[in-house]
Amino acid sequence: MEDEKEIENEVNGSEIFKEFREYSVVEFFKKNRQMLGFAGKVRSLTTIVHEYTTNSLDACEEAHILPEMMIKVEDLPDGHVKVTIQDNGPGIPQSHLGKAMGMMLAGTKFHRYMQQRGQQGIGGAGCTLFSQITTGKATKMRSGLGDGKVYECEMKIDVKNNQPLITNQSEFMGNFRGLRVEAEFAEVKYDKSEHGVYEYLKRTAMANPHAQITLIEPTGEKHVFQRVSDKIPEKPTEIQPHPLGVTTGDLIDIAHRTDSRKLSSFLSNTFSRMSSAKVEELAKLVPTVNFEKSPKDLKWPEAEAIVNSVKTLKWIAPPTDALRPIGSDQIDKALKNILAPEFVSVSERKPKVFRGGIPFMVEAAIAYGGNSGRAKADESKGGDIIRYANRVPLMFDGGSCAITEAVKNIDWKRYDIKDFDNAPVSVFTNFVSVHVPYTGTGKQAITMEDEIVEEIRYAIMEVARDLQVYLRGKVREMDKETKKKIIMRYVKELSMDLADLAGEGAPADIEKKLANLVENKYEKIEGDAEEAGKVEGVKEDEENEKEE
Amino acid sequence: MEDEKEIENEVNGSEIFKEFREYSVVEFFKKNRQMLGFAGKVRSLTTIVHEYTTNSLDACEEAHILPEMMIKVEDLPDGHVKVTIQDNGPGIPQSHLGKAMGMMLAGTKFHRYMQQRGQQGIGGAGCTLFSQITTGKATKMRSGLGDGKVYECEMKIDVKNNQPLITNQSEFMGNFRGLRVEAEFAEVKYDKSEHGVYEYLKRTAMANPHAQITLIEPTGEKHVFQRVSDKIPEKPTEIQPHPLGVTTGDLIDIAHRTDSRKLSSFLSNTFSRMSSAKVEELAKLVPTVNFEKSPKDLKWPEAEAIVNSVKTLKWIAPPTDALRPIGSDQIDKALKNILAPEFVSVSERKPKVFRGGIPFMVEAAIAYGGNSGRAKADESKGGDIIRYANRVPLMFDGGSCAITEAVKNIDWKRYDIKDFDNAPVSVFTNFVSVHVPYTGTGKQAITMEDEIVEEIRYAIMEVARDLQVYLRGKVREMDKETKKKIIMRYVKELSMDLADLAGEGAPADIEKKLANLVENKYEKIEGDAEEAGKVEGVKEDEENEKEE
Repeated sequence: MEDEKEIENEVNGSEIFKEFREYSVVEFFKKNRQMLGFAGKVRSLTTIVHEYTTNSLDACEEAHILPEMMIKVEDLPDGHVKVTIQDNGPGIPQSHLGKAMGMMLAGTKFHRYMQQRGQQGIGGAGCTLFSQITTGKATKMRSGLGDGKVYECEMKIDVKNNQPLITNQSEFMGNFRGLRVEAEFAEVKYDKSEHGVYEYLKRTAMANPHAQITLIEPTGEKHVFQRVSDKIPEKPTEIQPHPLGVTTGDLIDIAHRTDSRKLSSFLSNTFSRMSSAKVEELAKLVPTVNFEKSPKDLKWPEAEAIVNSVKTLKWIAPPTDALRPIGSDQIDKALKNILAPEFVSVSERKPKVFRGGIPFMVEAAIAYGGNSGRAKADESKGGDIIRYANRVPLMFDGGSCAITEAVKNIDWKRYDIKDFDNAPVSVFTNFVSVHVPYTGTGKQAITMEDEIVEEIRYAIMEVARDLQVYLRGKVREMDKETKKKIIMRYVKELSMDLADLAGEGAPADIEKKLANLVENKYEKIEGDAEEAGKVEGVKEDEENEKEE
Repeated sequence: MEDEKEIENEVNGSEIFKEFREYSVVEFFKKNRQMLGFAGKVRSLTTIVHEYTTNSLDACEEAHILPEMMIKVEDLPDGHVKVTIQDNGPGIPQSHLGKAMGMMLAGTKFHRYMQQRGQQGIGGAGCTLFSQITTGKATKMRSGLGDGKVYECEMKIDVKNNQPLITNQSEFMGNFRGLRVEAEFAEVKYDKSEHGVYEYLKRTAMANPHAQITLIEPTGEKHVFQRVSDKIPEKPTEIQPHPLGVTTGDLIDIAHRTDSRKLSSFLSNTFSRMSSAKVEELAKLVPTVNFEKSPKDLKWPEAEAIVNSVKTLKWIAPPTDALRPIGSDQIDKALKNILAPEFVSVSERKPKVFRGGIPFMVEAAIAYGGNSGRAKADESKGGDIIRYANRVPLMFDGGSCAITEAVKNIDWKRYDIKDFDNAPVSVFTNFVSVHVPYTGTGKQAITMEDEIVEEIRYAIMEVARDLQVYLRGKVREMDKETKKKIIMRYVKELSMDLADLAGEGAPADIEKKLANLVENKYEKIEGDAEEAGKVEGVKEDEENEKEE
């Protein structure tokens, strides 16, 4: 140590390292709060509501409870804003409440391969921190597990050590089940802009028709986003990783932690689609590796050889029954309900895989006319992109999101939308996965990985084609009406001439017969053309897709 | 504990908490590596080079050394890519090398209020992690402080505990001063696209004319970005926070950590522009607070009262001599050198403040014609936005960046640019601050805070006005030429007629006299119009600014 000290003082530059410090993840996010979504007064409030509601919806889903939530926002006389959120979820046991809401990088979700809204174990504690650094106050919590006991406490975070600081604990008998959080914030503001809490909850309701959500605004006005479906989404299930998605590093990590005694049984126990037959196949490809040895002895070159050989084998795609889409019926209902559009189409596509083994699925819909589209300053409508990830509305950072990128990459003219930015169109997209690759800890944008952008693009192109057929039909309908009017004018004159010429029958009778003839013939021709047009259109588009 | 256990087993839902875990920040970024910029093969390689070079440039600046760097990228036979970076900086003492490159949330930069490229204490360790999880290899380091001793080691990170794992250490005598890092990566790719390493270093050179940067590509080709200025940027200095930028939470934190014995001396020692007179003024505004007491006893309501009163007082703006802009001469030189444009204008604006007390400064420039603009697929040019923060090129996530937002918010038609996306224009912006509010840990976009977006917008509008004057001059020049040609044609005819009429003098002489007359008169009129136009144009724009 003496030597080191000498070096430090001796040379130019090592002065710098007198300033060397370590700091906690809470200190980091305290200084970089914008990374958690705490930037701007309106956005900060939306972030708070977002973190609490996603936690509630996740908890209800896992406990198989129909969610009922109340969110109350109050303006306090000192300029602070009080946010109260109460749910009817399973509650959080006293033993875990502190770490769940007062410690970053802790929780039930991070390590599990399961479709959930939250996945970081940062958000809830982030709100506790934000309350504390803007008002100095502790967050009040009440939790009931439904067993007749209710637990209450107040909580702050020990910023330096990333640990909960719990005070005023009490336990009493009561009927409450769920979680209630009451926190005060400064530097936040309630408004009804397109990035505000109202819009956030409206969008949450659209994608979660099984939830009953009540919002009480600072004015006291109450909005109820009614539950429109009694179907609780199926309980999410944890899935095993797929062999194609595993990296050498992952394989080593899991192997060194496993309880399995042999490499062969470890592989078949750990990965999906890894049958004993597959393990044998694999063993033949890497004869240098002893599959009977303990997984704890697996070395990097061996693991790398296994991972490389995995890529040369054929695999069944990962199981996708862990994915919980909203469902096209629900999306159709929600869009019709909220946008009252002229036309809606929802796509149903098969699950896909990204990074080799992470299953995902894209739900896309398009709505045209009615209240579709974004209202512009001049009261006209522009194309709107409504983004979701696992049913959570994404309201910020659209510019960095795979969904926006996919919409931009579509040649909308091909679908008879001359200018997306000036069309009365809403594009709805829900990205469903056991792991959403967010661009940041604020969880507002999905990383633009090629496989993801492409799949979203195809899903939207599918509904765009339906819209095109509808729009062409509309044009055709108008053309048809015009043509019919012209023909009918001739029919009238013709029938009079015919009556004159033949000298028998009333012109009115002849006209009626002729009109019927035209009407029948016309409908048939048009119908055939429409059918033909439809098929042709689809074919053409698919070919184009392949060319690109 | 028995009781708790009972509760957990008894009720529905608390099952969930059996899955409760804590995890380290390294585990978090291992799973969410895209948040560090490790998404996509090309981007990942750029991120690696970005992290190492910013560290080198920062170290050289602080040690007041003219930087000389070598970056070598090699494709290895097994598909891995080896990256070697060597600088002539001050080196890192052996005692700190482990934590500097093998521990996240540690470093010399995070807690200091000083203009630097890096500011998170995550990047260097992030590269060590990325090498390790993609190849299983340790990163090789060599550090020399210039004292004749050279230290070498290999390093990995203990992922679970966020601690460096150092092996193969050695120390020997040698002449080396600086840092050399050699690491292997998989899942990365070298290419020359607009997001690749070559472009990144080219842009780094543009904003750091005092650095000599050598790149050796996998093909063996060598590119030297020559040093064009021998002026080392002034050593960055640490500044005290400004009273207007401090939150109640910050004040409490700093007060509880200080060595000052009285609140009054604590305030004047800690904050910039906080004279004893100011402290007295403040004390009068909050008579309930005893300014003689220990800062350690400061309570939240007291601190809040102080912070609120601070806002009612007048303050001198924060010192801005800690800001280190590139300088308009250097920017002008760099743009002319690299873009060979028809026209360049660089703005020089005064420092501003965001979030109440964080000083920042915007350098903007516009280049038109020549190689300006982004090359499009059809070989035409479109408006290009070249973004920097503290001289570091920002190459990704443009859609979420305050700079892009500012460019979008400008009504380019007002500056005679009909369509920015189709104009041969490059807009160069460098955001300079002691704290850059990045949107994420990947450090590629600046948060869209209103004060920041507005200031960037004004800076760009300033240079856009200069471009407009140039473009109008060009149009006028063309008009003038056309008009002159017409007049001259008349002059010729007139002079012949005059010679005829007067019967004396050669037509050629008369023509010459007339031509001179026209030429002189014409220049004068045009010159006046230009002056008048200039003043008028500026006036109009400033008024519009205010209206918005």
